Amino acid sequence: MSATGSPPIVTLLTDFGTADAYVGIMKGVALGVRRDLTLVDLTHDIPPQAVAVGALVLRSAVPFFPAGTVHCAVVDPGVGSARAGIAVVTDAALLVGPDNGLLAPAVAALGGARAVFELAHAALFRQPVSATFHGRDVFAPVAAHLAGGLDPAGLGPQRDRMTPLALPAPIVEADTVRGEVLHVDRFGNLLTNIDRAALAAFRAQSVSVTVDAMSVDGLVTTYADVAPGTLLALLSSWGTLEVAQRDGSAAAQLGVGRGAPVVVRRE
Amino acid sequence: MSATGSPPIVTLLTDFGTADAYVGIMKGVALGVRRDLTLVDLTHDIPPQAVAVGALVLRSAVPFFPAGTVHCAVVDPGVGSARAGIAVVTDAALLVGPDNGLLAPAVAALGGARAVFELAHAALFRQPVSATFHGRDVFAPVAAHLAGGLDPAGLGPQRDRMTPLALPAPIVEADTVRGEVLHVDRFGNLLTNIDRAALAAFRAQSVSVTVDAMSVDGLVTTYADVAPGTLLALLSSWGTLEVAQRDGSAAAQLGVGRGAPVVVRRE
Amino acid sequence: MSATGSPPIVTLLTDFGTADAYVGIMKGVALGVRRDLTLVDLTHDIPPQAVAVGALVLRSAVPFFPAGTVHCAVVDPGVGSARAGIAVVTDAALLVGPDNGLLAPAVAALGGARAVFELAHAALFRQPVSATFHGRDVFAPVAAHLAGGLDPAGLGPQRDRMTPLALPAPIVEADTVRGEVLHVDRFGNLLTNIDRAALAAFRAQSVSVTVDAMSVDGLVTTYADVAPGTLLALLSSWGTLEVAQRDGSAAAQLGVGRGAPVVVRRE
Repeated sequence: MSATGSPPIVTLLTDFGTADAYVGIMKGVALGVRRDLTLVDLTHDIPPQAVAVGALVLRSAVPFFPAGTVHCAVVDPGVGSARAGIAVVTDAALLVGPDNGLLAPAVAALGGARAVFELAHAALFRQPVSATFHGRDVFAPVAAHLAGGLDPAGLGPQRDRMTPLALPAPIVEADTVRGEVLHVDRFGNLLTNIDRAALAAFRAQSVSVTVDAMSVDGLVTTYADVAPGTLLALLSSWGTLEVAQRDGSAAAQLGVGRGAPVVVRRE
Repeated sequence: MSATGSPPIVTLLTDFGTADAYVGIMKGVALGVRRDLTLVDLTHDIPPQAVAVGALVLRSAVPFFPAGTVHCAVVDPGVGSARAGIAVVTDAALLVGPDNGLLAPAVAALGGARAVFELAHAALFRQPVSATFHGRDVFAPVAAHLAGGLDPAGLGPQRDRMTPLALPAPIVEADTVRGEVLHVDRFGNLLTNIDRAALAAFRAQSVSVTVDAMSVDGLVTTYADVAPGTLLALLSSWGTLEVAQRDGSAAAQLGVGRGAPVVVRRE
Repeated sequence: MSATGSPPIVTLLTDFGTADAYVGIMKGVALGVRRDLTLVDLTHDIPPQAVAVGALVLRSAVPFFPAGTVHCAVVDPGVGSARAGIAVVTDAALLVGPDNGLLAPAVAALGGARAVFELAHAALFRQPVSATFHGRDVFAPVAAHLAGGLDPAGLGPQRDRMTPLALPAPIVEADTVRGEVLHVDRFGNLLTNIDRAALAAFRAQSVSVTVDAMSVDGLVTTYADVAPGTLLALLSSWGTLEVAQRDGSAAAQLGVGRGAPVVVRRE
């Protein structure tokens, strides 16, 4: 990072919204630690305290950043409780956030954790640390220190593991997988909790897919496999089953949203 | 650009929204090409696939950026089809995006195209190029390469022309021009498709203006020509007729939105 | 700032929204003055022309930025009228904006004004200066000049005072303070106009707090003083009384919004 002379990159993902100055405040604190940061917003519109949605959006983004990027993510319903803050070292990036599953899918997408450190070295925090805004007091300054080249081992004790993401699990039966819509994106694509593993038994087999008992056109590889206007299901770049409408909004077409039941059935 | 030692500027305008990480992903890819970019968001809230709105918002912004800025715009309902990607060289800026009319008004506002190149040199793209996200795979990396000083002639073959913007055309008759509201801005100002050319016959003549059959106070030069609370029409910095309320929202006052009919009539 | 070799920081707070390119245009103009700025958005979603909300959000953010930051704030219902533009020098930062009270609470939070200058030196503005968009023509270029090291005395004549913020004043009586909700943040916290001074008489006394005649759990010091789900009132980092629900939304729980009456009563 700094060794190359390039400005270090810190990305930010939160559920803070952009109507208040919370995100700007995190940036002010980070720039107070290190002035030459390139700060990139992933999104701040994660639904409040929706750790699973934040985790999946974070995973969708991390593969596309240069080596050495520090990703700082804060969706943190447990702020002020005993949950730890962690930094995770991967081959290509560093991730900082609460140890509540938020970072886990992104870490997996980056090839897994080489090391996990607990954020325990309070001299790196903004003092006094509030009970309600660790984004400002803990995660932003730690991310800036790491972007500036701080050895992660200086953050605190190493941990054996990090908390996995607790998604509502898909229910896998002999001929069906039952899941649900976790997130609707800007284009009306429906992101589900049905992951690659749940679908493994159906590989190369003919399946039907329904959303709230309405049929879509089956499981395809890319949007271009179907005609415009057709509903389709595919394994998305998010790593889970996505239901979409080519050149349209599946959410609008089907009249469904977050929580809608999704069933994949062997034909 | 880079010759001056200043960090090169890349602006981004899309219809991707900010609730997902799509824009952040474009920035990650661009920074992977060139680490010292200054990235500026114009807006990402163009209504999905509304090329005309994107084109007009882009035109409104480009005159205000320093020479050498690269503008990367993606409102791209034809992604994955045969539509080309292009880069356009103007006196003051470079523009990158799909060849669907999106760039045309901005290019005109910058004095016209000195050269248009097709984006054909795939070695500059992120590989593999997806069928659905050329913002990430084509336009962002090309914009970053151009910002870094790449000769646009290295992008691909030169073209004679670019696709013009297909706006719903105003209907010009002997004593009237009939158009419609294309966009409502944050302040409730109504942007129409009635352009300077359509109004030329009425120059220096007395006209009436109606929106959805409701009268406004006539065509003036600036907001300050009318009293606070008055509805007015003027030729806006967008280059088209705008209906506004001084110190208020014309959209709220008139109860109209996108698509509302607008008529200019010789009195 | 520039003396240290660090890129100078300019923050932006407006009521322009992000659906149009107005904010991007301000950044383009600022970068035209000084290419190496680090531009940080505080928020652009201040309700249109809500000077008091903008002032309080600005105050919430300024203490968290490095020394030398220039804060450029534009919520400006009086644009084009006789209201002056000002720059305010404080110990830790410079502030630029209309002289309508918008900057006053932030200046106080930064320890008060060391000097106030009227923006009168038109050579620093973008010309011609429009009647409607001083963010672009006056405030953004002046902020960039200041970030670049311009002596504020070069902006125009020094002033003895700046316009204070005209908040709807809380009504202080013998045993009660009556105020109202000024702003609801992303988390449903209710920000009121009841400030520290209005509460001074009740210090260390037992009080009850009601919002729209519904009781909350009394005045506490931090969220952690109450059980999850409990409604509470505290003196927030905004400097005024805030009503919140621990791990929830006070706005949703109480069914109230901006303008709701808030009463603090001695028990």
